[in-house]
Amino acid sequence: MIGSIGAAAAAICVVLCTVAFQVGAGAAEVKFKYEIKEFQVPLDHFSFLSNATFNIRYLYNDSFVDKKNARTPIFFYTGNEGDIELFAQNTGFMWELAEKQRALLIFAEHRYYGKSLPFGASTFNASMPDHLAYFTVEQTLEDYAMLITFLRNDLPLPVVAFGGSYGGMLAAWFRMKYPHLVAGALAASAPILQFPGITDCDIFYRIVTSVFQNAYNSNCTTNIGRSWKTFETLGGTEAGKKQISDAFNLCHPIKNDADLKNFLDYIEEVYGNLAMVNYPYNSSFLAPLPAYPVRQVCFYLKDLHQSDADLLHAMASALAVYTNYTGSVKCLDTSVNSNADDSGWNVQTCNQMVMPFCSNSTDSMFRPSSWNFKEFSDKCYKDYRLTPKPYDIILRYGGRNIETATNIIFSNGLLDPWSGGGVLQAPNNKVDIIILPEGAHHLDLRNSNPADPPSVRDARNKEASIIARWIHEF
Amino acid sequence: MIGSIGAAAAAICVVLCTVAFQVGAGAAEVKFKYEIKEFQVPLDHFSFLSNATFNIRYLYNDSFVDKKNARTPIFFYTGNEGDIELFAQNTGFMWELAEKQRALLIFAEHRYYGKSLPFGASTFNASMPDHLAYFTVEQTLEDYAMLITFLRNDLPLPVVAFGGSYGGMLAAWFRMKYPHLVAGALAASAPILQFPGITDCDIFYRIVTSVFQNAYNSNCTTNIGRSWKTFETLGGTEAGKKQISDAFNLCHPIKNDADLKNFLDYIEEVYGNLAMVNYPYNSSFLAPLPAYPVRQVCFYLKDLHQSDADLLHAMASALAVYTNYTGSVKCLDTSVNSNADDSGWNVQTCNQMVMPFCSNSTDSMFRPSSWNFKEFSDKCYKDYRLTPKPYDIILRYGGRNIETATNIIFSNGLLDPWSGGGVLQAPNNKVDIIILPEGAHHLDLRNSNPADPPSVRDARNKEASIIARWIHEF
Repeated sequence: MIGSIGAAAAAICVVLCTVAFQVGAGAAEVKFKYEIKEFQVPLDHFSFLSNATFNIRYLYNDSFVDKKNARTPIFFYTGNEGDIELFAQNTGFMWELAEKQRALLIFAEHRYYGKSLPFGASTFNASMPDHLAYFTVEQTLEDYAMLITFLRNDLPLPVVAFGGSYGGMLAAWFRMKYPHLVAGALAASAPILQFPGITDCDIFYRIVTSVFQNAYNSNCTTNIGRSWKTFETLGGTEAGKKQISDAFNLCHPIKNDADLKNFLDYIEEVYGNLAMVNYPYNSSFLAPLPAYPVRQVCFYLKDLHQSDADLLHAMASALAVYTNYTGSVKCLDTSVNSNADDSGWNVQTCNQMVMPFCSNSTDSMFRPSSWNFKEFSDKCYKDYRLTPKPYDIILRYGGRNIETATNIIFSNGLLDPWSGGGVLQAPNNKVDIIILPEGAHHLDLRNSNPADPPSVRDARNKEASIIARWIHEF
Repeated sequence: MIGSIGAAAAAICVVLCTVAFQVGAGAAEVKFKYEIKEFQVPLDHFSFLSNATFNIRYLYNDSFVDKKNARTPIFFYTGNEGDIELFAQNTGFMWELAEKQRALLIFAEHRYYGKSLPFGASTFNASMPDHLAYFTVEQTLEDYAMLITFLRNDLPLPVVAFGGSYGGMLAAWFRMKYPHLVAGALAASAPILQFPGITDCDIFYRIVTSVFQNAYNSNCTTNIGRSWKTFETLGGTEAGKKQISDAFNLCHPIKNDADLKNFLDYIEEVYGNLAMVNYPYNSSFLAPLPAYPVRQVCFYLKDLHQSDADLLHAMASALAVYTNYTGSVKCLDTSVNSNADDSGWNVQTCNQMVMPFCSNSTDSMFRPSSWNFKEFSDKCYKDYRLTPKPYDIILRYGGRNIETATNIIFSNGLLDPWSGGGVLQAPNNKVDIIILPEGAHHLDLRNSNPADPPSVRDARNKEASIIARWIHEF
């Protein structure tokens, strides 16, 4: 649950890390072929304390390149929180467009993720906090700047940055700070405004609530809103704990208050995930799911339930849409979060990526929770010996003041809870905003699919045409 | 001499540090009143290695502010290599304009200069090279970003950055990287292109030569060009060494080859300084000087001299324009370089501010010299345990690729040898280029003077009007 600090960090990762999940679910396809290369970067780009270096990985595919073209475009994915292969395999739009534009495809792995670990196996060793010191946005952008400079090899090659979610934030910031290196950036579902003081901390859960409210009928959110009290009441007795455990077929029955809390945190995360992957076709992003899974969930919650037992039963059916759509899951293990590499993201939330989350019960189906920076910061220090700098990102990237930005596409799906922290209004006529009314989290970056609704196809066409213009104008 | 590494760094400082000299010559006026304040900044903005902080100084004058104006402009001088008080006292244009615009005046001291020393008296202790690790452009710009954020105190106050020479480079880069914090920047005589591979290394000495060639007649540079051979021939004998020492009235007669080399390096620096302070009125910038001092120097070199003795005599008279215009100097002490704080600048040339200098004898009155990065780098390591990163600045600020820059005025005097590394062509219509045909090094930033030629007055008027527009549009 967002109100509890550890879970908040994990919850953010669950959402921002979804591309990893997607592949975790086995989406790798044969068409995604690449060489895996390495590139040496300084550990610290911004001081002269040491000359230490390490290697980041990048994926390389020149199969589409027209060798006679002296101005080959480079499509550069600004890797985010996870193994770069996962992103390469889940950003089909780049591959499809590279074929049309005859572009060189590069996917750069973010430092501290995948195999781009500055201190190898001891990178995340909590007893060596200095190992985490260089795990920042700016160091990462410099890695990419050096890699692009190397790849261009002094040739006037137009580079376009691509990224989704946190990778989209990096792509946008990269264009803002290194416009001499990239002709433009496609920032898909990039919540660059999800920072303290510039976006309401309850926006994420408000959007999730709204998605659920509009999925089937409004009883859905009423039931969910009431369910917390039901869980609390039942959880107060031994019999009730057993009742919950049985209803949800838990592998590890609830024994105490901590177990109950973990279970409720898990459910809240599932709601967020469901809103995010509320795709219009069957998918296996976070889990095997039907088309419009939120509608399916809310179908099971369409009737108002007065008794705790009835509500519990309906909730169990609803949750199974997410936890057991295939019907093959023997029991529900809430301790298995995902395949995601969230250890890295948790660190980033404790240095710069401080994104406040809270929930206001009057607008929300979630439990009320407030954002407590002090508590959050103390936990960061305890876990990593890190003191978060909550205003670093705004200081450097301007928060809502991005009037001078050019050649950036911010695309956002309105069904995506992260769109609350996205850029939905153009600061000037050189920044393009693309809204996908039916879009969930960076749907536009995925492979085209026969079931894609028109708005997603339109978005991709528009993106392709803007990117072609950038390349042409470069 | 530029060919020798240590002297090269010193020579750059002599030129870029001139504002310090100016005040060293006693130009402080009563009108420059300010409070001296301190502001705490992180030692390292870009890693999470430590939470160490230190204080930078800034000067504060709110005497012009209209307290009823909710949008008071802030004029922010991005301090460069020296004590900030010297810059405040030598940037009269800002004071004059602040009075008109009713602006708050801020002069921020650059870290590692003046009294903004992160490690106090041991900051430059060569046995503690880690003390110098955070002496970079990016750390400095972050200091300014934090200070501006503090000064604005969440109010929508338009900030204009000002700077001359290296301070002008910082002002321009600050606008490029933090456009959300400053509405625009006046970058006076800012050689942001004086970096490896993007500007010819002989440009500085070519401009100096050209200034001397056009000052009186072309015999001036012919004589100077021949003089090196004369010095070398005479310097080869004991009698010749004495002849030179007597002719120039040296406090410390030349005893050996090293003394001779130091003397010749000194003369070359003087030529560079003369071109830089070739102001149209008497000044005491680097030394007490007549109007158009280069013309005066060349007056003494107007006749071609065939004999070594005649040439030596003429050279001595010429140099005395710079070294003893007042006639009160008892003997010439070439070991006293200046009042400048060049220890800091020397370090910066050894980390990021790698500016190649060379001289080609066919175009130049200077001794031939080549740019040898390896030699330079080795010396940096020997002196400071620093390995220069010659492409850092281009990687981050784009070199000549500044097409996306907006709201920057680049002003350059064509008599200024640093104009060779300046921006003389606008990359777009949102960047203004102001050329001062009679201008030397950032003359436009100085107090207005009755003897100012029309082009300088025009430049200041144009700058004032552009700055007023930025403030209005903000």
